[in-house]
Amino acid sequence: MVVVMQERASDEQVQKVIAKLVEMGFDVHRSTGALRTVLGAVGGSSRNYDTALIEVLDGVQEVLRITEPYKLASRTFKPDNTVITIGDVRIGGDEVIVMAGPCSAETEEQVETSAAAVKRAGAKVLRGGAFKPRSSPYSFQGLGEEGLRLLKAAADRHNLKLVSEVMDISQLELIERYADILQVGARNMQNFTLLRELGRSKKPIMLKRGISATIEEWLLSAEYILAGGNMNVMLCERGIRTFESYTRNTLDISAIPVVQKLSHLPVLADPSHGTGKRDKVAPMARAAVAAGCDGLLIEVHHDPDHALSDGAQSLFPSQFDRLMAELRIIAPAIGRSICLEPVSKRGWGGSR
Amino acid sequence: MVVVMQERASDEQVQKVIAKLVEMGFDVHRSTGALRTVLGAVGGSSRNYDTALIEVLDGVQEVLRITEPYKLASRTFKPDNTVITIGDVRIGGDEVIVMAGPCSAETEEQVETSAAAVKRAGAKVLRGGAFKPRSSPYSFQGLGEEGLRLLKAAADRHNLKLVSEVMDISQLELIERYADILQVGARNMQNFTLLRELGRSKKPIMLKRGISATIEEWLLSAEYILAGGNMNVMLCERGIRTFESYTRNTLDISAIPVVQKLSHLPVLADPSHGTGKRDKVAPMARAAVAAGCDGLLIEVHHDPDHALSDGAQSLFPSQFDRLMAELRIIAPAIGRSICLEPVSKRGWGGSR
Amino acid sequence: MVVVMQERASDEQVQKVIAKLVEMGFDVHRSTGALRTVLGAVGGSSRNYDTALIEVLDGVQEVLRITEPYKLASRTFKPDNTVITIGDVRIGGDEVIVMAGPCSAETEEQVETSAAAVKRAGAKVLRGGAFKPRSSPYSFQGLGEEGLRLLKAAADRHNLKLVSEVMDISQLELIERYADILQVGARNMQNFTLLRELGRSKKPIMLKRGISATIEEWLLSAEYILAGGNMNVMLCERGIRTFESYTRNTLDISAIPVVQKLSHLPVLADPSHGTGKRDKVAPMARAAVAAGCDGLLIEVHHDPDHALSDGAQSLFPSQFDRLMAELRIIAPAIGRSICLEPVSKRGWGGSR
Amino acid sequence: MVVVMQERASDEQVQKVIAKLVEMGFDVHRSTGALRTVLGAVGGSSRNYDTALIEVLDGVQEVLRITEPYKLASRTFKPDNTVITIGDVRIGGDEVIVMAGPCSAETEEQVETSAAAVKRAGAKVLRGGAFKPRSSPYSFQGLGEEGLRLLKAAADRHNLKLVSEVMDISQLELIERYADILQVGARNMQNFTLLRELGRSKKPIMLKRGISATIEEWLLSAEYILAGGNMNVMLCERGIRTFESYTRNTLDISAIPVVQKLSHLPVLADPSHGTGKRDKVAPMARAAVAAGCDGLLIEVHHDPDHALSDGAQSLFPSQFDRLMAELRIIAPAIGRSICLEPVSKRGWGGSR
Repeated sequence: MVVVMQERASDEQVQKVIAKLVEMGFDVHRSTGALRTVLGAVGGSSRNYDTALIEVLDGVQEVLRITEPYKLASRTFKPDNTVITIGDVRIGGDEVIVMAGPCSAETEEQVETSAAAVKRAGAKVLRGGAFKPRSSPYSFQGLGEEGLRLLKAAADRHNLKLVSEVMDISQLELIERYADILQVGARNMQNFTLLRELGRSKKPIMLKRGISATIEEWLLSAEYILAGGNMNVMLCERGIRTFESYTRNTLDISAIPVVQKLSHLPVLADPSHGTGKRDKVAPMARAAVAAGCDGLLIEVHHDPDHALSDGAQSLFPSQFDRLMAELRIIAPAIGRSICLEPVSKRGWGGSR
Repeated sequence: MVVVMQERASDEQVQKVIAKLVEMGFDVHRSTGALRTVLGAVGGSSRNYDTALIEVLDGVQEVLRITEPYKLASRTFKPDNTVITIGDVRIGGDEVIVMAGPCSAETEEQVETSAAAVKRAGAKVLRGGAFKPRSSPYSFQGLGEEGLRLLKAAADRHNLKLVSEVMDISQLELIERYADILQVGARNMQNFTLLRELGRSKKPIMLKRGISATIEEWLLSAEYILAGGNMNVMLCERGIRTFESYTRNTLDISAIPVVQKLSHLPVLADPSHGTGKRDKVAPMARAAVAAGCDGLLIEVHHDPDHALSDGAQSLFPSQFDRLMAELRIIAPAIGRSICLEPVSKRGWGGSR
Repeated sequence: MVVVMQERASDEQVQKVIAKLVEMGFDVHRSTGALRTVLGAVGGSSRNYDTALIEVLDGVQEVLRITEPYKLASRTFKPDNTVITIGDVRIGGDEVIVMAGPCSAETEEQVETSAAAVKRAGAKVLRGGAFKPRSSPYSFQGLGEEGLRLLKAAADRHNLKLVSEVMDISQLELIERYADILQVGARNMQNFTLLRELGRSKKPIMLKRGISATIEEWLLSAEYILAGGNMNVMLCERGIRTFESYTRNTLDISAIPVVQKLSHLPVLADPSHGTGKRDKVAPMARAAVAAGCDGLLIEVHHDPDHALSDGAQSLFPSQFDRLMAELRIIAPAIGRSICLEPVSKRGWGGSR
Repeated sequence: MVVVMQERASDEQVQKVIAKLVEMGFDVHRSTGALRTVLGAVGGSSRNYDTALIEVLDGVQEVLRITEPYKLASRTFKPDNTVITIGDVRIGGDEVIVMAGPCSAETEEQVETSAAAVKRAGAKVLRGGAFKPRSSPYSFQGLGEEGLRLLKAAADRHNLKLVSEVMDISQLELIERYADILQVGARNMQNFTLLRELGRSKKPIMLKRGISATIEEWLLSAEYILAGGNMNVMLCERGIRTFESYTRNTLDISAIPVVQKLSHLPVLADPSHGTGKRDKVAPMARAAVAAGCDGLLIEVHHDPDHALSDGAQSLFPSQFDRLMAELRIIAPAIGRSICLEPVSKRGWGGSR
């Protein structure tokens, strides 16, 4: 922590600040300049201190943190990229992993048709919700376990992994039985009770960014899971709230390179929720891949006009096919690939 | 819902939109102008529809809702102010109710000293947390049930009601045993599982606004609780996230008159969390009362420099005294009062 | 400037940073801790340096400014409040100065009726525009010099000062001839060419905050005027842009105490533009006075339904009367007053 | 305009609204439903009306615009893409046009070296400022005409077009003599006096988006120029202000497809100002091209560590080379190209 004293701060005020810093467990270096005194506080037994306690002391102008408040999520702590392996799917490696499927499971036919379509186009993971967090209490709330059963069956039939959202501790055990990746939604990014439980799970976690979460808060939430012992955390940018209301949210593409610099965790993008409009999904998916994301989360529905939730942002299967073809051109620009077949099948038979 | 067609929309496109609206259960009125067609859709069996389903149809320029998506929370539904009565405390009536106390319970001495101080100055409700939601997993997380016990004992000794935060369904039964008002924190404003449970509680709920929640989303979250059968909901503005970083959040004072126009529910303000800085608490508390709020939530600590959480935004008891004196001058400007003693006890001579 | 090196920064990287700081004219203090090195850079010949030049060097984690980039506007530079005196009107003293009138001058009758009404209620300054900055090229753009003439005549008749907006250097000489205070609108807050010219004006300047300007940028814009030699600058908060769209802007009441701490310049609030809705003007005006503002800017129109601009946010004269009565109750809570008559004229008997 | 009445609105209130709409020049269609009345107002002699005038009438719940407030900028008005031709450079056609160069002209060597480098890599337009808008009055303010002379000479030597910023009407004539494209900076996006003058210029205009401008306001500002008779307007997204402070601004990539749907004008992106950090420029430039932008504006400096402005966000020439190579892979994914040589010169043999 660096403490900048006001120009007119008295020596007594400086001494009081030093005393408080020492009380908090810091070693203090004092730098006295012509105009003002600056105190450097190093050490400190924990990352668990509140700079505001110093800010309110008399004579203090400003207090500046010099360490990130997170540790396990930091690239300083672990310089190499984390690669999360689920069977033959590797998230955070050279391949950009596409996760696609309907917003929520509705019927067997819908789930099967969507799963077949996304598999054909090159997705490696099926996405789909069974419990839906809805702003309005009067909206469709999901099929529950029956939805999970349908999704899992379709994923298995098509050799896809399954990602599904867990909204509450009470659903955790159930969803763990079906899903390969547990998704934490944007509204739950700071549900610390839930994060703590997920730290004890054996399943990889996909942590979506809250719509008004800073990147630091997002990484702090990841830290909750990591600190619990679960090191398989991937992040997913899904749009932040800004003054612009033309799109539902503003997909913060720059968060991708920023997170990759600060952290070793894989980072994905969700252009479906990030824009809320079907015709904006493909441009933003291309942008996310061009910016270097490790994966995409995309809503695809065989009949979006009759979807029970988020139909307006779901791609038709044919639009998804075209998008995947475009992404295959873009990925090599940054040394990445988007494969058609799972890695474990490469080299099968002859000429591949 | 009003659907505005594009200037060049074909009749076939218009017919498709009408068909979809009818399928969704609406009666449709068509208005054909020189330049464009406008469709008015009325009726509809529920508030549970997604305008985006129409927005994506060909030829549609814009879709506009004409009803608020909430109902029970709306002043249209209930024109008279809701007054929540807890013993001799009435929230939403003429008196501005001040709730004050430490951020979190730490020790018996701290809780007792704070309770005595806020009572003396005129607070009617003791605030204090036992379970703290913290951005960092490495910060103080609260005393748990022991904290509740301390708070309840101090509240009882001083004839104060108690408000305390519930972070998760699993804590609900416990906190209900001690607290008179259950607080939902900003981070849980859209924890729908929790909101649904609170709809079944017999205790009044204080619902804080999420830091990036629109007023409409806030009222929709209140609707979750009301729809569950609990009509005693009060709202609390506590600052929104903006680009300005000088204050921790921007306390949105204008939300007070806006909510009072849209809804019948009482609305409070929390200038402590809304500013994060002790010397900004009093000006913003005065502003909130001048703007017409029904109550305040203020952090007071007998020794803020050693508080385990939020010390920097806690008032010293003497600062709180002065603030209460200022508020007693301001409240009459808008026909409100801030009493020193509970209404029912005024004029008592005797043993007090 | 404080430079925090990365934990793994090499000594060579540290040396390069030191060399660059010295090249920029700083004295450098090096603090080597167990985990990382921190460099304190003091001195520096000017406030005119770009921390980003250091941020991009290898091994640097973060760079933190330790001086405000503005000087003349800072309370460190001038601890006492600036009071701007225009005849018998003192802005920044004990009295809260109310400036009121129509958005723009339209007709002689309108200007006269509004001026008489605001004077009667206790305003000291007439506000009114002759050149209107409008988002749309198709909106009413103001009466020009004829508007200024009408405003000045009405102000003189009622012993009011006049504040009017200058949008461009080319209008400066003209508006200076009529107005007592030159207003810089929110959209021009960073029109540096204009600010520089105003630094040479003899008239006091009212600098509105840009709708997305940080408080630091606002004070930097004031610095442009002060640096030009014009020390009579007052600031006016008029709402910032946030995600909330219910009100046109979010009037940032907390900016009032923040500016008063950072700067010696008077700070006013404009609840009319800050809310955009008539029924929100009075609550926010009361809030601004309760928070400690030095003055208010309020739109009043004798017939708002037919105003050519901003009618929806203009108060009727009777509403303005009631507001002034409320403000007279609130101001004493913080040791301020709102006088009916200019201080220097109090106690006059006779014909007034 | 669509006017939604409150559920409890009286017939008298409805009649008053109708009367006001007729007074404003609209034809009114009344739709009476079981619960509420909706009024459709069509026609109206101009786009110059203020919905707020209706919003404040008694009984009105909400007023909704049904036309964009701009016309000439709208794709409804002109369905085909505008292509701006400057010699052999076509902006808005199949080729993605890259404009690159230093933030500001400093010395002949700097300008020449940068121009040679960006030309070699495939840029078609040289960018560079002679007058710099700076937040602080103490920062480098540009070389003025000497800067323009240096830029123009270098552009000519390398067969590049020149884009340079005009900050004020007073500079217009001068800059027009040197530059091929006149840039309006973000801070001047609503300098309506300047926009009006540019409407009379013969030169193409590049209009940057204000940091807190909505897309609608941006197109309205373009409308000012178009309405003046200058149809050669291109737009440039350069980052918006959000709560996230890790990057200087948040480059709103989604604005690219949004603008392309609403308007026929070409839209570019400026990843240098949009991020403020050198290592974020390439990812965001790739993202912008992948999203479909018509061009890029990129800062390149032969010695960024000693640049007088914006050095921290300028690319080294070698980084720019690599970026251009990546963009050449990406552009074909969406049917675009980035050429190495001007179209008209391809196939030249000879001395090159």
